[in-house]
Amino acid sequence: MERIPILKMGPFLLVTIQVDMHDRLAMQLQDDLTTRIADTSARGVLIDISALEMVDSFIGRMLANIAGMSRVLDAETVVVGMRPAVAITLVELGMSLTGVRTALDVERGMALLGSAQRR
Amino acid sequence: MERIPILKMGPFLLVTIQVDMHDRLAMQLQDDLTTRIADTSARGVLIDISALEMVDSFIGRMLANIAGMSRVLDAETVVVGMRPAVAITLVELGMSLTGVRTALDVERGMALLGSAQRR
Repeated sequence: MERIPILKMGPFLLVTIQVDMHDRLAMQLQDDLTTRIADTSARGVLIDISALEMVDSFIGRMLANIAGMSRVLDAETVVVGMRPAVAITLVELGMSLTGVRTALDVERGMALLGSAQRR
Repeated sequence: MERIPILKMGPFLLVTIQVDMHDRLAMQLQDDLTTRIADTSARGVLIDISALEMVDSFIGRMLANIAGMSRVLDAETVVVGMRPAVAITLVELGMSLTGVRTALDVERGMALLGSAQRR
């Protein structure tokens, strides 16, 4: 399967990352996601990483890139579902996911996006 | 990655199938999903198969099993995001996905579950 599905849920888009990311797949995701934001006028993007057992600098950079691209298209990005072990590793490695907002799960992520939108 | 994430969205659960299913993964998903329905008192399950380029009899049976298990736990199952080519193949192969409800996308699936719940 060469593409990561992007699901539209009301004014937001949801991306669940389940497969190992590699360069081409990350590029494809950025491409698909920005196109989809433009097409649907989405105001927020939720990226679920609950299936990921590890977040390395490649994934971290991809998340930051997606957040940056979405921002210039006027959509907020929230990363949700991070496992506790991943959070520990991120901090231990000194990776701060700059510019990326996080929430515990999809519901809280949606609430965060909803409140950001109302402001 | 050995597990398919199950996301809670309000009263419903969302499962996005992105990876090739095999016996053990299907069993794990059934196990996780039924546990999750019981834990969260979910009233509906959405299974997104937009990433699947092919639905064979194994996947068909798995979807029917999940729908059956959810039903006895008082949750409706809706399969969403089927690709047009998959629909064509299903009918040509004479597979009818008995007992499985379908909707075009997640939003329509949620609307279907919502209206089923209100009845």
